[in-house]
This record gives sequence, C-alpha cells and structure tokens, in this order.
Amino acid sequence: MSADDIRFMALALSLGRRGMGNCWPNPAVGCVIVRDGRIVGRGWTQPGGRPHAETVALAQAGEAARGATAYVSLEPCAHHGQTPPCAEALIAAGVARVVAPLADSDPRVSGLGFEMLRRHDIAVTTGVLADDAARDHAGFFLRTEQGRPLVTLKLAESLDGRIATATGQSKWITGPQARRLVHGMRARHDAVMVGGGTARADDPSLTVRDLGIDRQPVRIVVSRFLDLPLLSQLARTARELPVWLCHGLGADPERRHAWEGLGARLIPCAEQGSQLDPGDILRQLGEAGLTRVFCEGGGSLAASLLAADLVDELVVFSAGLAIGGEGIPAIGAMGVERLESAPRFRLVEVARADNDVVQYWTRV
Amino acid sequence: MSADDIRFMALALSLGRRGMGNCWPNPAVGCVIVRDGRIVGRGWTQPGGRPHAETVALAQAGEAARGATAYVSLEPCAHHGQTPPCAEALIAAGVARVVAPLADSDPRVSGLGFEMLRRHDIAVTTGVLADDAARDHAGFFLRTEQGRPLVTLKLAESLDGRIATATGQSKWITGPQARRLVHGMRARHDAVMVGGGTARADDPSLTVRDLGIDRQPVRIVVSRFLDLPLLSQLARTARELPVWLCHGLGADPERRHAWEGLGARLIPCAEQGSQLDPGDILRQLGEAGLTRVFCEGGGSLAASLLAADLVDELVVFSAGLAIGGEGIPAIGAMGVERLESAPRFRLVEVARADNDVVQYWTRV
Repeated sequence: MSADDIRFMALALSLGRRGMGNCWPNPAVGCVIVRDGRIVGRGWTQPGGRPHAETVALAQAGEAARGATAYVSLEPCAHHGQTPPCAEALIAAGVARVVAPLADSDPRVSGLGFEMLRRHDIAVTTGVLADDAARDHAGFFLRTEQGRPLVTLKLAESLDGRIATATGQSKWITGPQARRLVHGMRARHDAVMVGGGTARADDPSLTVRDLGIDRQPVRIVVSRFLDLPLLSQLARTARELPVWLCHGLGADPERRHAWEGLGARLIPCAEQGSQLDPGDILRQLGEAGLTRVFCEGGGSLAASLLAADLVDELVVFSAGLAIGGEGIPAIGAMGVERLESAPRFRLVEVARADNDVVQYWTRV
Repeated sequence: MSADDIRFMALALSLGRRGMGNCWPNPAVGCVIVRDGRIVGRGWTQPGGRPHAETVALAQAGEAARGATAYVSLEPCAHHGQTPPCAEALIAAGVARVVAPLADSDPRVSGLGFEMLRRHDIAVTTGVLADDAARDHAGFFLRTEQGRPLVTLKLAESLDGRIATATGQSKWITGPQARRLVHGMRARHDAVMVGGGTARADDPSLTVRDLGIDRQPVRIVVSRFLDLPLLSQLARTARELPVWLCHGLGADPERRHAWEGLGARLIPCAEQGSQLDPGDILRQLGEAGLTRVFCEGGGSLAASLLAADLVDELVVFSAGLAIGGEGIPAIGAMGVERLESAPRFRLVEVARADNDVVQYWTRV
C-alpha cells in the first residue's frame, strides 16, 4: 500500500459518494483507473444502480486500461446479476492490478471477486482506507447482513432539546444554513422518513430543494392508523415522487384505498404494544431495497428507533434559543430508567452552521 | 494603536483574568509596564480586590517605570477609596503613556482616571481590545450599572436536553474532561449557585476541586422554604467556606436559625408567584458584592432566570446519550408560547471535550 494507493482510493471513495441515495439497492461505488500515474478513467454507480462504477470507468479508459491499476471502493462483483460481473469486465479490459478497501458483505460475492481476479493473474491489494469505506457502505452492508437499512436520525432542537413550542410552532428553530445542510443530507439517503405526528403538524413535502438534484428520495410516513390528511403536500405529489406509508393492520381500509388511489405504496407492519414495531418497519424497508434512511422525527418515532437500538448515525442541530419544559421534546418517552441503559453515541465531529451547532454522532 | 499595543494589551487582559472570581466586588484588572519594548512590571488585582493591578506592576517595575508605557485592562481609578487612586500612583511613578481598552463604568470614576492622567501630561490611548475587555469586565459593569452580577448558566445534558433520568439519576451524563472544565469555570466566578431541588437531589459540595486554587467561590442555594437537609455537604462545611441561602419570607424560622447556627448567611428575597423573584435574588447578590455568578441549575432555577432574561452567558455540555421524554428537563417550564418570545443566544464557540460537546453562547 503506497501513498498513491491511498490518494487514488480516497478519490474513488469520494466519487462513490456521488451515488449515495441514488443507486439503492446497489452500493454506491466509485472507481478510478490509473495508468503510469495518470488517471485514465473515473466512474461511479449510476442512478438506479446501473451501470456499475467499474463499467463506467473502464468505458472511459478504453484501451488505456490495459496494464493499468483499478481503484474500486468495494470488491468488484463476481456473480451474474442483471449485469455481467465487474470482475470479468476488469479481466477483459486487461487491468494489471486492482486495489480495494474491503470485501463485499453480500454472501453471493464476498471474496469471490478478488478470487476471480487473482485466478487471472491480476494483483489484488485490499485494506486501503477500509474504515472509510466501511462507513460509506454501512447501509448496503446492514441490508445484506441484517436485512435493514442504515438509519440516520436528525434532530433540530433548541438548546434544551425541544423541537417546537407547546402550541406546535417549530418554524424556524434552526437557521437557513442548517436547513440547507439538511437538504444535502436528504439527498445522500435513499429515503426520508417521518412519523405521522410530524406529517400532520408540519405538512412537509420532504423533498430535496435548491440543490439541483434530479432524483428525489422516497418519502416515508410511519402512521399506525393512517390518520394522515388527504389534502397535503405528500398526498398532492404522491404520483410524481414516491410516498410509502408504513401502517398497522388496524388502519382504516378506506384510508388505505384512498392513499393507494393517490399513488402511495402501502407497507403493512407488525405492531408492538401501542405502536408499530420499529424493527419490522426497517425489515420491510430493507426488503423494499432501501439501504439508507434519513429519519427527521418526530419525538415518538425517534424514541421508538432509539429504544430499539436502531439508530446508526445521529445528527443534532442545536439552535441558540431556550423553549423550556412545556415545549415538545425532540425524543419522546423511551422507558430509560437507569443511565446505563440509555443508548450511547460516539462524537464524530462538531461544527457550527452560522448560529447553530451541528453535531455528528455515531452508534457506540 | 500599534501591533505592540495590541500584543501588550492582550497580555494585560490575560493577567487580569487570573483574578476572576477572586477579587469581587472589584474588577479583575491586569497591568503590564513596558519600557523600551521590554516588560518591566506585571500585575493583576490580588485576592479580595487589593492591591490593584497597577500597584503590583509598578512595585515590580520600580525606577524602570519612569518614561514607560502602562497597559491597564481598565481605566485606572481616580477616587480615594480604601486605597489611593491608581491614576495618582501612575503619575507618581512617572509613566509617560497609559493604554487602556475602555473607561470604567463606575460613575465615580468613569473618565476621571484618564482626565487626571492627561492633566499630568501623560499620553492616553483608549479603545485597544475594547470588546475583549468589555466581555472580561461584564460582571463588574453589570453590577455598577444595573446592580446585579453577571450570570453564567451551565447545563450538562443528554443530547435531548435531559439532566437526569426520571428516577433522578444524573451521575454521570458528561465525562471527566467536561467536569474538569466545569471546575475551572467555577473558579473564575465569585459564586456558584444552585436551586434547592438540585441541592436536595445531588448533595453537592459546589467547591472547586483538583485545580490547586486557594480561594473557593461562595456557594449559593436558592430555596424559597429553606427545605434543605441539615445533614449535607453544604451544611457540614458552611463554617469553613461561605454558604449563602436565598429564601422567601415564609421560610421556617427554626430552619433559618439552624442554618445561621451552621454558619450560613441568610438572604431573604422577594417572591413572585410561586417562586422567588430572580431579579430580586440577583439584586441582593449584587448588593452583597458579587460580580459573577455561575448557576448550575436545576431546571426550575434555570427556567426562572431565562424567563426573566437574566442569563448573560450560557455554557451547554451535550453528552452522547439519549434519555428520552421521561427524563428531567435541563430547563423547566418557562411559559414560552411563541418562538419569537423564546430567549435567544449568539454562538460564541463550540468545541469537543472528549466525547462531549461544549457550546458557549452569549445573550443576543
């Protein structure tokens, strides 16, 4: 592993991130082809998950790929799926060496891609920037290993942890720069998810705005009884941009019918006590192909995910105002009695966004 | 104003800060005497407020003060108080020039010190690092101008704004590094203040530990009915280190007597609705000489100070755990119904303290 290997892999990873939120259920992979120290091809997984990063980069490199090194941010696939395997394409193109951070966790592929390359006398180097790659592909790995997507929970709260006044006023607690960051985060996830209370209170559109992106994330509302207004931004736009509704078995059939008529996809989920089972919700979303879900509250859904230890990444925006005890809490009742049983997170980064603080936490 | 002026004034300010928390009711001033570009004297206000910074620095400079420049972090005093005025001392020592950031706000002195110096042909430069000095002396200025000390409110909360579980468990939400920072903050204030609920729940000693300081801040408990345990850290140590109790007129006379017997100072305060009037509490503390008070909660006292717009600086420690809606809120009921009426703060700085986030906010 040389300094060049690290440099080119960092580039492959950053190219791969361009596909985040855009290529589910496939992983967002990046690829750089380097010949004699010169970059001759670059690619990343395209919208919808195909073509794969290697295909794009090899096409760009053409004949220059012969004898070159391919930096790929995940093990090249070796199985015949909807496309021929990338390992075969790399072999056919005549690359001399492949550098990758880690093996695919998909049991159909894990290690097989590397093996196929080595069988054709291609040198394989692994372990380059493996931690960064593991973080980038965490959603894809969680889905293949545990059958559920990665969950990023976002809270935008006052400095005392409130997301609205007692009367429900929440616009705006954080400032324009923080809200713009949120739109970027939405764009890097496959779906944006809120609870029914938030959908009713805020009438959100949950789209990515002002960032010039083509493909919108799926909009998901978790609502046990489907008691959501049929005159709403989500209802009005469900035919153009996907709206998925996770509901309980007792949801009114007429409402189910009405939402289906509006173009929404209905996802019946198991119940657990008085609410939907968060584990089953995520299982269903994983089955539907999602790898990265961005949850924007409200307090009940946040509490339910946290209590079930299903929050992988946590982004907290703290604004410079105090709302006080009557305000609506960012996280609802969780049943935590002892500090030892409170879900804990490791601080990744903290920064300012104008007059707000933005904290990035990851699961311990 | 030259680059040297700024450099030496920054030093004078930093020396002045050494007296913070130690010299009330006097301001914590720093002084540097510079002759031909060399520092010949340094001083800061000594414990208890005397000798003043200028006296200390001039004594160190001796004959070298003649023709020198004195950098003083606040206008030198011109009135005969318990010590002869510093302006006179500077004149007598023969300094050629005095540099100060701003005028004293004490009406007995404001501008008079500069005037006295100029009358004796000493060049006076003002306005150097005036904003920094205004912040350092904010407590002293608030007391002389408004009759109350500066209030720093500290919150140490979970990422959802809770300071304890529903059962009252609060040890520990933040980590050792954050707690150490808190001890440093206590040391830079004249007094540490908590509400009666916190005193009952935590049995705190409210002292500065492990920092090798000689002088402890005054310990203040705000308790309307004085229903505080007589077997407690505060009760046990009230004779060695000051304990002041702010209470209402209806506090049980026997309890008042008992606490006086233990060595505590009793401060009767006006009531406002069902609690003590925070404005009157601070007025009384200002009258008693305090310039900087560090309030460590709990939620009711924090809410009462915030609702009355009496919090000047806010330090928020956020720990990487979620406690949920049943937890005890960092800030109690405040009666805020509209976001427009929520007290707002400007972000000064944000940093990490190991796995906690520390945010410094100041009043808008």
